[in-house]
Amino acid sequence: MSDIDQLAISTIRLLAVDAVAAANSGHPGAPLGLAPAAHAVWKEMKFNPKNPKWINRDRFVLSNGHACALLYALLHLYGFDLSIDDLKSFRQLNSKTPGHPEATDVPGVEVTTGPLGQGISNAVGLAIAQKQFAATYNKDDLTVSDSYVYTFLGDGCLMEGVSSEASSLAGHLQLNNLIAFWDDNQISIDGNTNVAFTEDVIARYKAYGWHTIEIPHGDTDLEAVAAAIKEAKSVTDKPTLVRLTTTIGFGSLAQGTHGVHGAPLKADDIKQLKEKFGFDPSKTFNVPQEVYDYYSKLAKKNQEVEAEWDNTVAEYQKKYPEQGAELKRRLDGKLPEGWESALPSYTPEDKPLATRKLSEMLLTKVLPVLPEVIGGSADLTGSNLTRAPDMVDFQPPSTKLGDWSGRYIRYGVREHGMGAIMNGIAGFGGNYKNYGGTFLNFVSYAAGAVRLSALSHLPVTWVATHDSIGLGEDGPTHQPIETLAHFRATPNLSVWRPADGNEVSAAYKSAFESTSVPHIIALTRQNLPHLEGSSLEKASKGGYTLVKADKPDVIIVSSGSEVSISVDAAKKLAGEGIQASVVSLPDFLTFDKQPQDYRLSVLPDGVPIMSVEVMSSFGWAKYSHEQFGLNRFGASGKAEDLYKFFEFTPEGVAERASKTVQFYKGKEVVSPLNRAF
Amino acid sequence: MSDIDQLAISTIRLLAVDAVAAANSGHPGAPLGLAPAAHAVWKEMKFNPKNPKWINRDRFVLSNGHACALLYALLHLYGFDLSIDDLKSFRQLNSKTPGHPEATDVPGVEVTTGPLGQGISNAVGLAIAQKQFAATYNKDDLTVSDSYVYTFLGDGCLMEGVSSEASSLAGHLQLNNLIAFWDDNQISIDGNTNVAFTEDVIARYKAYGWHTIEIPHGDTDLEAVAAAIKEAKSVTDKPTLVRLTTTIGFGSLAQGTHGVHGAPLKADDIKQLKEKFGFDPSKTFNVPQEVYDYYSKLAKKNQEVEAEWDNTVAEYQKKYPEQGAELKRRLDGKLPEGWESALPSYTPEDKPLATRKLSEMLLTKVLPVLPEVIGGSADLTGSNLTRAPDMVDFQPPSTKLGDWSGRYIRYGVREHGMGAIMNGIAGFGGNYKNYGGTFLNFVSYAAGAVRLSALSHLPVTWVATHDSIGLGEDGPTHQPIETLAHFRATPNLSVWRPADGNEVSAAYKSAFESTSVPHIIALTRQNLPHLEGSSLEKASKGGYTLVKADKPDVIIVSSGSEVSISVDAAKKLAGEGIQASVVSLPDFLTFDKQPQDYRLSVLPDGVPIMSVEVMSSFGWAKYSHEQFGLNRFGASGKAEDLYKFFEFTPEGVAERASKTVQFYKGKEVVSPLNRAF
Repeated sequence: MSDIDQLAISTIRLLAVDAVAAANSGHPGAPLGLAPAAHAVWKEMKFNPKNPKWINRDRFVLSNGHACALLYALLHLYGFDLSIDDLKSFRQLNSKTPGHPEATDVPGVEVTTGPLGQGISNAVGLAIAQKQFAATYNKDDLTVSDSYVYTFLGDGCLMEGVSSEASSLAGHLQLNNLIAFWDDNQISIDGNTNVAFTEDVIARYKAYGWHTIEIPHGDTDLEAVAAAIKEAKSVTDKPTLVRLTTTIGFGSLAQGTHGVHGAPLKADDIKQLKEKFGFDPSKTFNVPQEVYDYYSKLAKKNQEVEAEWDNTVAEYQKKYPEQGAELKRRLDGKLPEGWESALPSYTPEDKPLATRKLSEMLLTKVLPVLPEVIGGSADLTGSNLTRAPDMVDFQPPSTKLGDWSGRYIRYGVREHGMGAIMNGIAGFGGNYKNYGGTFLNFVSYAAGAVRLSALSHLPVTWVATHDSIGLGEDGPTHQPIETLAHFRATPNLSVWRPADGNEVSAAYKSAFESTSVPHIIALTRQNLPHLEGSSLEKASKGGYTLVKADKPDVIIVSSGSEVSISVDAAKKLAGEGIQASVVSLPDFLTFDKQPQDYRLSVLPDGVPIMSVEVMSSFGWAKYSHEQFGLNRFGASGKAEDLYKFFEFTPEGVAERASKTVQFYKGKEVVSPLNRAF
Repeated sequence: MSDIDQLAISTIRLLAVDAVAAANSGHPGAPLGLAPAAHAVWKEMKFNPKNPKWINRDRFVLSNGHACALLYALLHLYGFDLSIDDLKSFRQLNSKTPGHPEATDVPGVEVTTGPLGQGISNAVGLAIAQKQFAATYNKDDLTVSDSYVYTFLGDGCLMEGVSSEASSLAGHLQLNNLIAFWDDNQISIDGNTNVAFTEDVIARYKAYGWHTIEIPHGDTDLEAVAAAIKEAKSVTDKPTLVRLTTTIGFGSLAQGTHGVHGAPLKADDIKQLKEKFGFDPSKTFNVPQEVYDYYSKLAKKNQEVEAEWDNTVAEYQKKYPEQGAELKRRLDGKLPEGWESALPSYTPEDKPLATRKLSEMLLTKVLPVLPEVIGGSADLTGSNLTRAPDMVDFQPPSTKLGDWSGRYIRYGVREHGMGAIMNGIAGFGGNYKNYGGTFLNFVSYAAGAVRLSALSHLPVTWVATHDSIGLGEDGPTHQPIETLAHFRATPNLSVWRPADGNEVSAAYKSAFESTSVPHIIALTRQNLPHLEGSSLEKASKGGYTLVKADKPDVIIVSSGSEVSISVDAAKKLAGEGIQASVVSLPDFLTFDKQPQDYRLSVLPDGVPIMSVEVMSSFGWAKYSHEQFGLNRFGASGKAEDLYKFFEFTPEGVAERASKTVQFYKGKEVVSPLNRAF
């Protein structure tokens, strides 16, 4: 190890230690252990601190996100927009250095990590996106994309099932652009990993089809890291896992124990550490000028690499004007003009269809127009109807099942892995709008990843079919009850439940135009009629009056498959002398963003409002005074039988609407949208 | 294969085919492929169809639950309480033969399966419980427990991360009482498994520390199945995975394709199948008498095995009266009389403590009294405070880290696996009340398992600490916002958020007394005062008036860490001439079960009610007119700073309460508990 390498590594270590100490909170152990490897890996990476979103940069994902003090130190030293003062305010409110790395807040952070297992799975998504992007735009004579994805992960990441799912798929997909470093420090929060984690990780990854490399002296052996990267790059058909044996808390008096994992080092420990590393123990956040100079030189070399790439792209645009323009458009993050004319529209005369079928018809029309849309399913392709007829599978060409430019991903039965991979694909850039299919009920398996889509502002889309007891015979193990409440309660998450073809178009328009809001689109297995009065424009407001009574006695607000039942109920009520309006509310979040006067025009004062949805009514009181829902688990049986049994019929809805009118007769009725604060 | 074996297998196959055909819905492929193995395995199992809950039975878990027609056929043939008419009403509303096997509905079904990956993970839990039970009660001279857990699983189960987590732990724990059969039929819904699942499963399981056996001719080789079981039983320190290569849809014209996976066979296919198997194609649900006789003989032999065990237990109770009485009590499903006197109680003079700490203190007192309580943590022991000082780890004795009678399980960072394993432990019987710790936010990783706890009525408990932005610096990746709404919207799930020590006692009392409701107990990282007016008795109603104003202008309803803030707000309001009552509502489900007059005494007509909880307000309108919540993601910072920033302070609460009073002045106020229907 050269002197400057040693000095740089000590600087990283001490910046991390000082940041944790200043916050009196955080994780010094992993930064101390991983600093040498991080230094060595970043030296091999190409990226531009002055343009952190450059599309052909190598990506670095810190899957063990609690080690973020390490990452922030590196970002600072390389000249990203992260100052020494930012490091000093580590883990403080409204700082640019939060307790776990958040892609929305920290320049240079690729994906938000911390919840274990997510980062390595995001890295698989980044690698998939890179492969697909490269295969779409690279030419024999001009290479637009050839970047790598590097990731660090800890024992915790390896224990999480989500990483197992993503890693198995990465092996199948032969993602040789993915290089992972396992920080094998044998310590987790409960102490030595031998209390719960004694599997042979290397053998497991070999079983997944990964190339593996072992570096026994990860604390010191920088050459081995560089050599491992070289070796990994030479493997053409496998991702690589490098086992990097390190000492957690290297240099600390408590090194090698879980005592250094998640708590600041004590003052005397920091003192001896600084002395040991040849630093002045009276100084904090101390960066020797030669270290700044050293990294600045590396960063500059990287800027030259980007400049070369700019030339390549300029040449590309001349030589391949059509694809060049498309590439530019995608890099600008814009959809093609007029793309929305590909969205189907329907009239009540059109044949009733399941909204999952309407989703397939939409994808079939939109996919040729939007090359940035890629998608897949967690082994439910024929049920989710997520694969348009012309799609090619994203597969290693050697499998003869598809190729790298394929836009359809066979995820296998791996919902959580799929969710985290989708986040990685969206995080790649290039305007990717990617979707994944499963039953609505099994989006819950991926809750950990869905939450991070919302937190990280990643525009991914779940095609969530079989969205209620309407799926029938599969029964309560498959019938969502709490699922919509769960996701509607999640901030920054659009949860669409379209009622017909026009609303399906509105849902996808919202999803594909989104740059920061993930979408779940809940779709039926069973056929639904196209509604009189629905339109893409109206539905795009998230909620609208579908049936307008002159002087309504009651407003029925509903979503998805229950809207047409509510319309029939309104007709029935009219026969009984009760005037009912019907409101369709396909997406709470979009509706909430409308101006209050519009919202009050839909759900006004003075009229009792009843919601109808065949699942948990939890949360519907936001928009209604009374709720008709299904606050129990469903049952196995024919869909029609279930709807009748639970009284989700025009009669059942009308009866409750009538009771609602009675109950509120003579009472002052305030719209639930009018609030005290 | 003997003639009777062949006839029995054909009968099973055709019963399954007929059931699916009658329902015109279901999965014939796996039953056709797995019938020989199932027949062979069940012959080796000990169980009593007339006493399906016998504690020392071998358990059979169909992890690929969609193959349930196979299971129902076997249950019928062995004489469980499942008639031929039940088979005929397969997948019909209110039948005893739902579309996936539900433990609550079908006699002989051990755990509810269907959501893939859960069953094999439940099986790990069953195996843990058996080991712990055996180690607790077996004597050198008298064996109370020596049963095995058998499970069938498909490719889908193996792809799911939850099974990876549970399987890795099973290998670590050396669960040699677990024998799993992988139905290696190379077909999943998307077609051949080579589209997404090309890993080397056997190598992976070897890496986990499992013993593995391969049976290449699973369609015919019954001897190999019997031999595999024998071999598995001879392995003393490993669970066993048997790779059973079968033909999906064996005998069907479409055998070996995904066409037979999830749709009924066509009429002519069924005809040729029956002819091929020597059955009359004009008959359906046809069971030759010799097949009934054959299984009845097997079942009788099994009853003798149970009778022998009864004798052993009688002897045990004589020889070891104390443990014998405890054993009897546990088998009767009763807690020891007076156990609840071990629950701590507190007064406002007691030192403020974090509810996670109060939880640890409670466990420390209760664990010696309740031997059926065992628990663990997903690698957050020191944070969840789930390990009472005296606990011994549940570990293979050879590791020298604990022993089989240990009551503390080191789950590793495997929340979903932990959830599914907890379900298995509860499903074992023996009155097990088991708990698992993680951060509240990461209970979401286990959503798939939590839902099944609720659906299957399994009394498991999540010790969910760090329950809000109050966890501070770890930031929004770790701060729950939507989590309580998610789980409160789930039927049959108690979600406690205690506000102080007495409420912690009430939460655990509810959890440990429960026989059919799973519990999540949300606990703080930060200290809370003990409340004036709280008590175990009051809190046990799920909600109660903590501070009663004479003539309240407003009621503040709150939970957990916001209750004491609300009490301070009420004091502040009193200074401003506003009378505020404060209601503590630690568990919605328990409160909902109280008589309406009690509930209305807490949340009466005529007073505006405002809820206060520092997370999503979604769903609180069930109990309040106005909601003060946190409908955005949190932030990284000191807990005090965050509470101030988001205005969850006495001032912030008082200000909103005051606005609530203003808003409702002169309006008729109806309690949200008074409903139109």
